[in-house]
Amino acid sequence: MRKLINDPADVVTDALRGLAAAHPSLRVDPENRTIVRTDTAGSGKVALVSGGGSGHEPLHGGFVGYGMLDAAAPGEVFTSPVPDQILAATTAVHGGAGVLHVVKNYTGDVLNFRMAAELAEDEDIEVATVVVNDDVAVEDSTFTAGRRGTGATLFVEKIAGARAEEGADLAAVAEVAREVNERSRSFGVALSPCTVPAAGRPTFELGENEMELGIGIHGEPGRERATIRPAAEIVDVALTAIDADMPLAGEELLVLVNGMGGTPLIEQYIAFAAVSDWLAGHGATIGRSLVGPYVTSLEMAGCMVSVCRLTPELARLWDAPVETPALRWGR
Amino acid sequence: MRKLINDPADVVTDALRGLAAAHPSLRVDPENRTIVRTDTAGSGKVALVSGGGSGHEPLHGGFVGYGMLDAAAPGEVFTSPVPDQILAATTAVHGGAGVLHVVKNYTGDVLNFRMAAELAEDEDIEVATVVVNDDVAVEDSTFTAGRRGTGATLFVEKIAGARAEEGADLAAVAEVAREVNERSRSFGVALSPCTVPAAGRPTFELGENEMELGIGIHGEPGRERATIRPAAEIVDVALTAIDADMPLAGEELLVLVNGMGGTPLIEQYIAFAAVSDWLAGHGATIGRSLVGPYVTSLEMAGCMVSVCRLTPELARLWDAPVETPALRWGR
Repeated sequence: MRKLINDPADVVTDALRGLAAAHPSLRVDPENRTIVRTDTAGSGKVALVSGGGSGHEPLHGGFVGYGMLDAAAPGEVFTSPVPDQILAATTAVHGGAGVLHVVKNYTGDVLNFRMAAELAEDEDIEVATVVVNDDVAVEDSTFTAGRRGTGATLFVEKIAGARAEEGADLAAVAEVAREVNERSRSFGVALSPCTVPAAGRPTFELGENEMELGIGIHGEPGRERATIRPAAEIVDVALTAIDADMPLAGEELLVLVNGMGGTPLIEQYIAFAAVSDWLAGHGATIGRSLVGPYVTSLEMAGCMVSVCRLTPELARLWDAPVETPALRWGR
Repeated sequence: MRKLINDPADVVTDALRGLAAAHPSLRVDPENRTIVRTDTAGSGKVALVSGGGSGHEPLHGGFVGYGMLDAAAPGEVFTSPVPDQILAATTAVHGGAGVLHVVKNYTGDVLNFRMAAELAEDEDIEVATVVVNDDVAVEDSTFTAGRRGTGATLFVEKIAGARAEEGADLAAVAEVAREVNERSRSFGVALSPCTVPAAGRPTFELGENEMELGIGIHGEPGRERATIRPAAEIVDVALTAIDADMPLAGEELLVLVNGMGGTPLIEQYIAFAAVSDWLAGHGATIGRSLVGPYVTSLEMAGCMVSVCRLTPELARLWDAPVETPALRWGR
């Protein structure tokens, strides 16, 4: 494997040790697999907890900090975190105002977060849950009943985190999280597969000039295997699929062009130019934007386009200060 | 090619159109290839201009903004910008206090920046130049006489940019830029080659289990072709080479673990853990750190380790607010 790793069995532990060393302001427990923000003890604010399989970095651990998540529970690569781990993250950040669980819609994640929420409620911690399911590519997939949760998870965590930071109660934070999810859609494209370290072989095969349209973030199949096309045509497929599901004309959008892990930034900006052209030609405007590898799939090449139909209130919350390893601005 | 591009001839123009669309606060000219910060007109501060071949994004265009560069001049992929282009960037941001050119040590870059500086001086613009040459891997290389300029370019641009922002004169800004370069060293490793779009084939070949130790950021050869090893051993090679050139024991360091473009963040954090372990075992401390793909080489897999021996003053300037597409904090 062409990977910068030690023992494949230690990938998550080693990466968490690196996260701890690079970001001393976070409390990272590499053994028990929790990443916790330390500056909110006793603040009484609603706490946000997310998690899921590793291999999507910076999601979720890189989004722990002021204005976003209070804790993250990373599982093994492409594997759900276990309930005890999610419970540990939840109890660590609970400040009396309740906890919002942000869960991507994968069967294992949904089950384990539900079990953790029940355990937390046994300890008199109020938990609300938002399940993110923004991916329009397929209705059901390898790991889901219903749509997959992908790029919009970042939107939900940022905007709900801002709402919690300004003192909203659990119902209000959960409400804005659900609103963001309902107003968001994503579509991803893979130009190469990726390899789970413990498996040692690619999650799927692609021919020399093939791509997978509608890819999932674990390499699960999308809509169509096709020959590689110019970026503008790839973006057209993605935005046409999104627009068919949630009309974009007349909307002001938050747009994420997200690198999948192996595609360099120069290509992500080329894709963003194509997105900008497409939206201008279809009567939508870009109100806010983000370009970079934020919700990745190990070293998969390709990109995902995620959009959220903004309201003035959602734009205000997007602009609010954030200070995490992967997103920082304006504080 | 498994690339998210349109016509290979349009790669740089398309990427600059994307940069313009994503960052409306920058004035990007995709045809004349300049990226200019617009909020300093008439400020009278020293201006910082950098540039070089494209394919290293976010370097340099992603570093244009408050507290860092005033303008960047991107050439074609892995090709120096031309003197007229550098001159256009220089005149666009000149505010009366002179301009610092930050130049990576490649023959074409050095020549073209020198010519642009002479042309600027003909227009009574005072120009000082710092040549960055931090790469300890080789003494001369495919594109250089002397050492290559790589990851420390980010350190120079950030710290000199902070000094300019607080009103230092050209001599003082140039002095701190040279000081950072002299106190910095880098060493890179490639786990895969990369492909220049216009060429259509990899810049070099690597066997299935091979890596290149001491790689340059254009795929130019390093010190040694070796079989792929665990991350901790790769980091040991890099830091041993740096330490032999500039002893690290007893130093407080600014550390960058830099993804080369095709290596995902989870692996960069694994490398950072190894760097942290190595430094702890050799009597050096990590004062500041950065992990991410900042000085890339298209889709090359691998990483570069860059270190700068901090002083309290350099740490203060590193911590100073910055607001660019790729680096943002603290304003």
